[in-house]
This record gives sequence, structure tokens and C-alpha cells, in this order.
Amino acid sequence: MSSRASPPAPDGRVRAVIDAVRPCVDGGRFAVKRVRGEEVLVEADCFTDGHDALRVMLRTRAEDATAWEETEMREAGNDRWCASFVAGEPGRYRYNVVAWVDHFLTWRRELARREDAQDIASAALAGAALLREAAARAQDADRALLAEWAEKLAGGGEAAALRDTGLDEDLAALAARHPDRSLETAWPVELPLVVDRELARFGAWYELFPRSASPEPGRHGTLADVEARLDYVAGLGFDVLYLPPIHPIGREKRKGRNNALAAQPGDDGSPWAIGAAEGGHEAIHPALGTREDFRRLVAAARARGLEIALDIAFQCAPDHPWVKAHPSWFRHRPDGTVQYAENPPKKYQDIYPFDFESADWREMWMALKGVLDFWVAEGVTIFRVDNPHTKSFAFWEWAIAEVKRARPEAIFLAEAFTRPKVMHRLAKLGFTQSYTYFAWRNTRRELTQYFTELAHGPGRDYFRPNAWPNTPDILTEALQFGGRPAFMSRLVLAATLSASYGIYGPAFELMEAEPREPGSEEYLHSEKYEVRHWDLERPDSLRHFIGRVNSIRRENPALHADAGLRFLRTDNDQLIAYAKQTPDGANQVLVVVNLDPHHAHSGWIELDTEALGLDDGSPYQVHDLLTGARFLWHGPRNYVSLDPARAPAHVFRLRRRLHREQDFDYFL
Amino acid sequence: MSSRASPPAPDGRVRAVIDAVRPCVDGGRFAVKRVRGEEVLVEADCFTDGHDALRVMLRTRAEDATAWEETEMREAGNDRWCASFVAGEPGRYRYNVVAWVDHFLTWRRELARREDAQDIASAALAGAALLREAAARAQDADRALLAEWAEKLAGGGEAAALRDTGLDEDLAALAARHPDRSLETAWPVELPLVVDRELARFGAWYELFPRSASPEPGRHGTLADVEARLDYVAGLGFDVLYLPPIHPIGREKRKGRNNALAAQPGDDGSPWAIGAAEGGHEAIHPALGTREDFRRLVAAARARGLEIALDIAFQCAPDHPWVKAHPSWFRHRPDGTVQYAENPPKKYQDIYPFDFESADWREMWMALKGVLDFWVAEGVTIFRVDNPHTKSFAFWEWAIAEVKRARPEAIFLAEAFTRPKVMHRLAKLGFTQSYTYFAWRNTRRELTQYFTELAHGPGRDYFRPNAWPNTPDILTEALQFGGRPAFMSRLVLAATLSASYGIYGPAFELMEAEPREPGSEEYLHSEKYEVRHWDLERPDSLRHFIGRVNSIRRENPALHADAGLRFLRTDNDQLIAYAKQTPDGANQVLVVVNLDPHHAHSGWIELDTEALGLDDGSPYQVHDLLTGARFLWHGPRNYVSLDPARAPAHVFRLRRRLHREQDFDYFL
Repeated sequence: MSSRASPPAPDGRVRAVIDAVRPCVDGGRFAVKRVRGEEVLVEADCFTDGHDALRVMLRTRAEDATAWEETEMREAGNDRWCASFVAGEPGRYRYNVVAWVDHFLTWRRELARREDAQDIASAALAGAALLREAAARAQDADRALLAEWAEKLAGGGEAAALRDTGLDEDLAALAARHPDRSLETAWPVELPLVVDRELARFGAWYELFPRSASPEPGRHGTLADVEARLDYVAGLGFDVLYLPPIHPIGREKRKGRNNALAAQPGDDGSPWAIGAAEGGHEAIHPALGTREDFRRLVAAARARGLEIALDIAFQCAPDHPWVKAHPSWFRHRPDGTVQYAENPPKKYQDIYPFDFESADWREMWMALKGVLDFWVAEGVTIFRVDNPHTKSFAFWEWAIAEVKRARPEAIFLAEAFTRPKVMHRLAKLGFTQSYTYFAWRNTRRELTQYFTELAHGPGRDYFRPNAWPNTPDILTEALQFGGRPAFMSRLVLAATLSASYGIYGPAFELMEAEPREPGSEEYLHSEKYEVRHWDLERPDSLRHFIGRVNSIRRENPALHADAGLRFLRTDNDQLIAYAKQTPDGANQVLVVVNLDPHHAHSGWIELDTEALGLDDGSPYQVHDLLTGARFLWHGPRNYVSLDPARAPAHVFRLRRRLHREQDFDYFL
Repeated sequence: MSSRASPPAPDGRVRAVIDAVRPCVDGGRFAVKRVRGEEVLVEADCFTDGHDALRVMLRTRAEDATAWEETEMREAGNDRWCASFVAGEPGRYRYNVVAWVDHFLTWRRELARREDAQDIASAALAGAALLREAAARAQDADRALLAEWAEKLAGGGEAAALRDTGLDEDLAALAARHPDRSLETAWPVELPLVVDRELARFGAWYELFPRSASPEPGRHGTLADVEARLDYVAGLGFDVLYLPPIHPIGREKRKGRNNALAAQPGDDGSPWAIGAAEGGHEAIHPALGTREDFRRLVAAARARGLEIALDIAFQCAPDHPWVKAHPSWFRHRPDGTVQYAENPPKKYQDIYPFDFESADWREMWMALKGVLDFWVAEGVTIFRVDNPHTKSFAFWEWAIAEVKRARPEAIFLAEAFTRPKVMHRLAKLGFTQSYTYFAWRNTRRELTQYFTELAHGPGRDYFRPNAWPNTPDILTEALQFGGRPAFMSRLVLAATLSASYGIYGPAFELMEAEPREPGSEEYLHSEKYEVRHWDLERPDSLRHFIGRVNSIRRENPALHADAGLRFLRTDNDQLIAYAKQTPDGANQVLVVVNLDPHHAHSGWIELDTEALGLDDGSPYQVHDLLTGARFLWHGPRNYVSLDPARAPAHVFRLRRRLHREQDFDYFL
């Protein structure tokens, strides 16, 4: 028999076992995400051999701190231990679990079950020995007290009295402060946690093209025009105003209106074809204004409770200054020309992608992160990142961490509408929020499946959805063919299914629905390629409806998170119903949407009365916050009827406490 | 803005991403288990930014080898890549996944989609450059060939011809042999795999007490008596003969018959109270025989295709030689006496547990592993470990790995009937097989839930169930009250739901069903405390039925594994039905059991005809391997009727190919 000389080096006497600590993303390779003030519930499977008692501690610290804070974990059945802490200021944190076999606790638990007087006498002596050891670990008053208790137990006496002494609660608390932790074990990974500010979880976004913000038809909009529009956007109840790229637009290979291959004289080009003689990613398009204008805009927005989000599109127009200054950052074809973006047979001659395999990648990474730093210095901490999945994943992981190290409040929204695994990877590696497939989820089944996955699936700890019914790239068929009811229902769905959502306006509130050609999801006369003028005062605008929905969102904490989402059964496939509630159940919102924009539908909604705390049989009120209407419901099944011509949705607040005769003074 | 001087040290140009490699137990902390010859399917999520092509390799090696073997992985949709290898000889292995962005493959894929002649000409030059680089990496003939192809592409010509050249399959194969892997990435963990011999997955166990093996009533059985019984056990179709401890039994504090606190003169004591003046864990009880007798038994068993499994119970009777020789291995009470096992108010005065927090733990571990080594040297490689969960987990992880390092064929069965997390931990840390909760799963719902979890749940890669309808400790109420039909149905369930199963005999085949007292699961006159005599020739013995079931198991590969288990719907709750099939579907077994031992039941079974390949509408035959009866079935729903008084179960083999007129000579 071959056999090693001796057991392994670590102390083999460590008997506590810790398993399956969660939340945990990929074994701790990536961080769990929470927002400031949110409860972080940590669970772990902990046990030991035999019957001995364990103590288990949750440890937390800021990532750059050395000292841990500890919270005692409690057993919740089936060897699962739990404790929670409240997420602090934005930043990076670590948490971990430690456990040890606690001999005093074991002794105490056994003492409680001992019946034989001789056993109790013997146990008292053993307990005294444990307390003397505890005294040796303690200081000052505790040390003296522990020694005193030890003597009491060692002093003998009646079994019942000895037992009472040993089981004294004060003694238990005292001993618990001085455990023998020499054989404790720690979970091998100090799990990372990113705490973001609240806006990372809950916010309403509004996108507009600054160049279309002029109130006068035919004039190129400016940052000053955007400033003048802030009251409008804030009035609609939005939190973030997101601007497509505001940089100089390339002239070489510029695309024309409706994405024509060649621009005509006077065509303004695409804001995503970044860079020209006037500058690149750190410059402002002269037609939009100056750095001063931008600073004023940022400050004016903030004064209205709005934040400006910028678009980060890491790609260059052929005349971007970097193309000449840093040719090694781009790929070249055998003939020496720079390789434009392509996905054969499609070609994007107006766009040069960066070569993330460039030998000069370090300088390039620094320059790209420099762009982020530049705008952060200008007061922007929200970035909507264009097509992050076409740049290297390693770059984003590094750049986002670096920016957030200095500015933990920074928020990065990943504009990726790509394959699921890629979407998830971006979220794991650091993007704060992610665009979703919401635009293409229309039926009850699709919406239920997708938002159940988002709220409760494996991504729940790192993938924060931001749902958009439209974007400048996406005019869905639902909106093309559904008319006003579709715009309304898609808005309600986005705004209530997802704590973060956004619209691309004013196209949205003005119900722009004409595609470039049948079967296309591109807008006709897309703002991506030309300046548009919008009549915000049009009487059919949805602005008031949107404002109402955003108010409802703000006033109802249930809508500030997605974890409390539960879908409800309905007996009509065209009616989708779901409830959201705060963890304490104090705020409960019930949404019912008629998904058919063409016909009225009615049906029965089945509430989970137990989950909603409505199972005592009393009637309750559902208060439609959209219309103000109130309905008296009772029991789990209730009837709903929605005519899209009037209102395609109910957003009910549940009011459990109805007035009863006892509430009136004269009842007494 | 604070910002680090430069990007991180690793090469930022690595663009391939690997995620979620599986199978994987706790991120690679523990090994995945397979048996020799089994296919190991490895999957990984792999992708890169943008549209470039990836190549992904599965790497495998024996743990002590340095060189990897590589297998190309294929994309299976949704960015999931797959490859498999066949588990080799028993031992420890590692596997891993590597991926890189492959520029030639990208180039080729794009070329296939190129339409424009000028683009193709330009692409041909780029391809030539890639091939010249590949040539520089190649040797000899390949080098010359690659250079030739490069010149062909660089030579220009008609676009269509150039494209054909670039897309040549031979060229693709040649280039694939010489990729640029300078920027490859590897999954950070080299995942461990334990390959066991086939018996680890599939085997029938028979437990008997050697001291009860005498054919003469009243005489203490011997190892020679066991040897004489080998033909009986082998004749029943068992693979493993497991013996409770065969060591000297302590005399101090010996328990009497039926677990009486004090033994009476002549009482033989419990084999689990190990150790007396004659020796400890490496000695043989003199009444059973000698070391020579044992060696002869092991050899005689092997000659009959049987293997002897020993019981490993790491605990000592008070008169075990180690108690005096190594007092530091045990806990002591304040009065200096050794602490016996207890779980207050219960006391086990005849058992001293080891103190796994002993300061002398290293010596103790070596001694305990020495016991395993000792019996391995005597030809035993199967160990049924008694209550492993009352010994330290760290010890088992080390000891099992050490024994298996020298003898990879060793099998350890964990006798733990404790909490689920603890059961799973033991399986993860190295136990080959685990006892289960089968004894207490009786209803269709309970069995379906539990065996679905075992076959398909998260433990499927490391937790191998071994199902026992009875043990010397467990006489279930199902057996106490169900009579012969219950013994038959519980046997069929154990033997067909679980590829490994066992019975405690002859109590099982002789249908011993009397508990020590009502409500107890202890046998009256338990062999744990006294010698019994069994009449193997009793006409009502289930031996022939058991032999039939074991033959069916051997002849049907579908029953050699649990991964192919699928439960079927029945319209009668007392009928449980399930199918098992081999991965290739060549062997299909369908089991139907009447769970009610008192009444006949009939009902409709719903087969998953698609999964079973029966969905072409043709009739098929189900052949009851227990009775020989054959039934012609068709479609998914078929009728079954089972009278427990005759046979409580069908074990059907599905025979899809029925004779048709074409099969007869005269048809032609």
C-alpha cells in the first residue's frame, strides 16, 4: 500500500462545514448587486459531524477595509443559516461566513435535556471547566463574571439548582461573547457585492435627440433647446434624460436620410458616426453648442431632479482624429486602408471599429476609459453604452470597475439586444443595467415567462432589466399596428413590470408608428439620420398619461423593485395580470392589461390572496390609480373588463383596510 | 478623477469568453463521478465580442499526468459548446475548456457570405496573409502546403475561383491544424473527475451476520459458514456480500438481547461495540475464525463473482485496546473517565466515540486510515461506513482520497440516514455511494419526487443512491404491515428505481416482520444483539423471486444506471409506473408496481411514446420479465391490472420490433 506520510497541513480538527453560501454569482467570480438601503439576505448551509452546536457569523466589510463586521446567523431549518445586513453607501463590499463548533452551546443544549442527577453533577463540572477557559479569553468585568459562574457550577448542590444555574440566560449571553474560535472555518471566497445608488434599480428614462429639440421647424436643435425642454421632461415624471451622442459627426462616408448609402448636401449624418475635424469622443458637435452649454444643461437638469445620461459608442467615423493619430488601434486591410465595420455581405463604411487585439491595447484602453473619465468630470455619471458586446468583455470589466472605484454612483446601461448568454455576461462583468427583449415580448405567455425569469431567475442578483417599448432602432410591430391603445398598454407594461424603464420620445408620446418600409422596425425619417421637428402640444399626445404612470410609479414603492413580482391567473388569454408588493407588504399594486389593442376583453382574475394577505375573507378595495375608480372586491376571483378604446389597463393599489362600523365615533 | 496608471497585467487582447462549464460540483471544489466506460458530456458557454469565429477545445488528463488530450467542441445552439469523452480506468482525472478567437475561421465564414468581386479580391489577400502566418507555425509538409495555398490566394484571378479556393475543405482542415492560439483563454478551474469501476454505479448487495450463518441452530456461525453460504448468495444474483463488523466485541458495558442495558451471561453483544482484549479494528472475532479463514472467504467469494464488503465503524468498546493505548483520542469527563456516546437523555455506555478535536488528531487519522489499509491489503475494496456523519468530514475527505489514490477501485458506501445537506456533503467529499431515504418513501408521490431528485437533481453528478428496503436497523412499517406483497413490491422498487440496491438477509427473503414493540422500527430479537438461526429452505422464501429480479437487472442495461429514469402518469394513485432506458434506447424497461399490498388495482398507464420511440402508431410488445407474460400494446395509454396476491409488479421489457408479414420467407 502506498500511503502518504501524514495528513494534510491544515488543522484537521476543524469540524464545522460551510456550504452553498448565497447570493453568489459564479462562485464569487462576479459581484452580487444591490442598491443603497436594500436588505442583503445571506444564507449558508452549515453543519458539523454528530450533534454538536454550531455558531455561524456573517461577516461584511467595505472592499478596501480590513476589519469585518459580524452578525450572528440563525438556523432557518434544514441546516440553512440566515442573516442579513443593509447595503450601505454605493461602493464595493465583501461578505463571508464563518462557523465553529461551540462547546459551551453544545454543553448548554445537552444540559437542558439531562435528567439524571449524577449526570447533571458531572455536566456541571464540565461546564465549569468551559467557563474557566472562557474567562481566560475574556477581559475585565466579563473575565471576573465568567470565573464567578464557573465557581458556582463547580460548587455542587442540588441537581435542579445546578441545572438552572447552567441554563441561566445571562450566563449564555456572557459566554457567547467569549467563544473559542480557534477551530473556526471560513467560506473560502470573500464574496463581492456592488452597492449602487437607488437609481440603478428604479428610474424612468427619456431619450431625445438634441438636434431635434428646436421649437422652430427647420432649425438644428441645440443643448440650449434641450435645457428649455427640461421642464417638459421633468413634468412627465422622468428621472433620466438620455442623449444620443453629442459629438462631431464624421463627414467621410456619411450616411444620408433613411440610411441612404451616400449623404446629400445638407444631410446631418448619424450621431453614432463619431468624430470629425472638430474632435472626437470628448468634443461637442459645434451645431449643438459648447462645453459651457453642456455644463449649464447638466446643472439645470439636476435642479429639476433630472440627470443627463450620455451615450458611449466606442467606434469612429473615418475622419475621427484618432484614426490618423492612432492607426494601430484599428485593423487594416492588405491594401493599407482601415477596415470598416462589416458583417458580410453588410458593410458599414462610415464606422471604424476599434481593434481590441491591437498591440497597443493598453494605450487604447486608457484612452477609452479617458472618455468616460472626461464626461464624469463634466458631471455625467450615467452612461448608456452602445453595443457593448462588440467590444472586448475584458475591457468593460476593467473600465467600469475603474470608473466606479472613483465614482461608485456611476451607472452603466448596456445597450445589447443580443444572445442571452452575452447579455448576462455583460451584466455580470459590471454593467449596472441591461436593455431587455421586452420590445418583442407581446403575449401573456411571453411576458409571463420572460419577466418571471428576470425577477426570479438566476440573473436576479446581477441582471437589472431596463424595459423600453421603443428606441430609435426599434419601432415594434405591436406599435406599428396597435395604435394608441398599444402605446398605452406597452407603456404600462414597461413601467410596471420593470422598475427601470424608458421611452424614446417625443416619438413615443406622439405615437410615431410609420416604418421605413413594411416589415422593417426602422422608423421612417428616423432621427438617427435627420433632424426632426416634434409638436409637443399635439392634443392627442400621451404626455399626460405618461405623467400619470410615472407619478404612480413614484408613489408606490411596490413598483421600485422587481423581486416582488408575481403573475396571476386569468381566464382570458388577452388579459395579463400581476401583482407587485414591497417586502413588508405595506404597498401592493395589482396591474391588469388588455393585450389586444383592438377589442374589449373581460375575464376573471385569480389573486393569490394568501401571498397578498387577503385570505381572511374580508372584502378589500382596489383603487385604479390611472382613472381614480374604486372597486370593492372579495375573495380570490374577481371580474375585470377593459376596453382599449377607453383604457387598456388598470393599475390598482390594493387597500386592505376598509372602513367598518367600528371606525366611526358613534360606534363606541 | 483617481485612475490607475494602466490596465491590468494579463493580456487584455484575450477576447474569447468561457462561462458555466459543466458538469461541475461546487465550482470544482469536489469531483464529478463517473464509472469506467461511461460517456462524460462536457458543456460550456463560449462566445466572444462581435461576430468573430471561435474554436473551443475540451481538455482532459489523468490527475497525475501533465499533458492534456484535446477534443474539439461543437456549438449546440445558444452559445453552448459540447464535447464528450469516455471515462477511462478508475482514478482521478481533470478536465478543462480552452477557447480562442480564430481568425482563419472568421475569415472563411465571412468569405462564404461575400458577394462583391472587389471584396473577394481584397479578402483573398487577407486570407493569404493568415495562411502565411499559419505556415510559419507549421512544420514540414503542412508548412509547404500552407505556403502553397497562400500563394494561390495571393495570385488573384476570377472572384468565383478565388472564393472556391478560399473555401476549400482540405484547406480548412489544414489551417485548423495550425491555429494561432496565442490569445487563447482557459476556464480557470481544472475540474476534477473521479472514475470508479462499474460496480460503483450498478450492483446488488446482500448483508448477513456471519455469526448467524451456522446451518445448525444454537451454534455461533463462523467465516467458514459464510463461505458455505456463498453459493446461496451468488445464486440469488448478488454482487456484493456485506458483513457487519467481524471484530472482537467489547465485554465492558455490553448490551444484552433486544438492546437490554446489561448483557446476560452468554449474550454475544453488538458487533458494532468493537474491540476487546483479543484486539480491535484489525482483529477478527475468535468465534468467527482466523485471518486465514477470512482470506479463504474473500477468495471463495471472488471465485463466484461475489465481493466481500466490510463494515467500517470508527468507534470503540470500552475495552478496545486503543482506549488504554491512546487515551488522548477520546474525550474525558472531569472525573477522568472516558466520555461515552450520548445524545441526552440517551446514553450509549458501550461505545466510545473518537474525539476528532484531539490534539493527537494526526496520529489518530493515520491509525484510522491504517484500518482501511489493513483490510485493503486483505483483499477488501468495498467498505460500508457506519454513521460517517458522526466523524469529522475533513477526515473522510482525506482518508478516502488516500485509499483511492493507491486503490482507485475502492468503493465507500456512506451509511448516513441523516439530514439532506449532510448526506450530500458526504457524497461530495468522496463517498462512492450513499444510503437513501428510500425505506421511508412509500406513496407514488413520495417515490416520484425522491427518485426524480436523485436521478436528475443537482446531486446527479456526485450522489449515487443505494436503495435498501430493510437494514438491521430499519424494519419499516410498510414491511411490518404489508406482508409478502409488500416485501415483493419494495424489492422491485429498490432494484429497478436504483441501479444499486441491497437487502439485509435472510431477514428479507424470509419476510421477518415483527418489531421489538409497536411503533418501533427495530426487529424483535434483532441480530444486532443476538445470534439467530435462519431456515433458508423455508418454502415461502422469496429467494427465487429475488433471484429472478437480479437476473432481470443483469440482463437489462437500462437498469444499470439511473439517468434514464422517467416516471409515467397513471390514473390510479396506487399504481406507480416508470421507464428506464439506455442512452441509445436499445434497452427499455417499463416497471409498474401496485403500491397497495392489500388490494388489486388496475388503471391506465400513459407512456411517453415520443421519448420511447414508440410514436409511429405501430403496436409494440411488453414482455413481463417476472412472469414471462407478453402483452400487445399500442399508443400511449394502456391498461394494467395487478393483484398483489399473485404479483404486485410488472417488469416489462419493451420490444418495439414486432413480427410482420414481411418477416416471413413466403412473403417475398
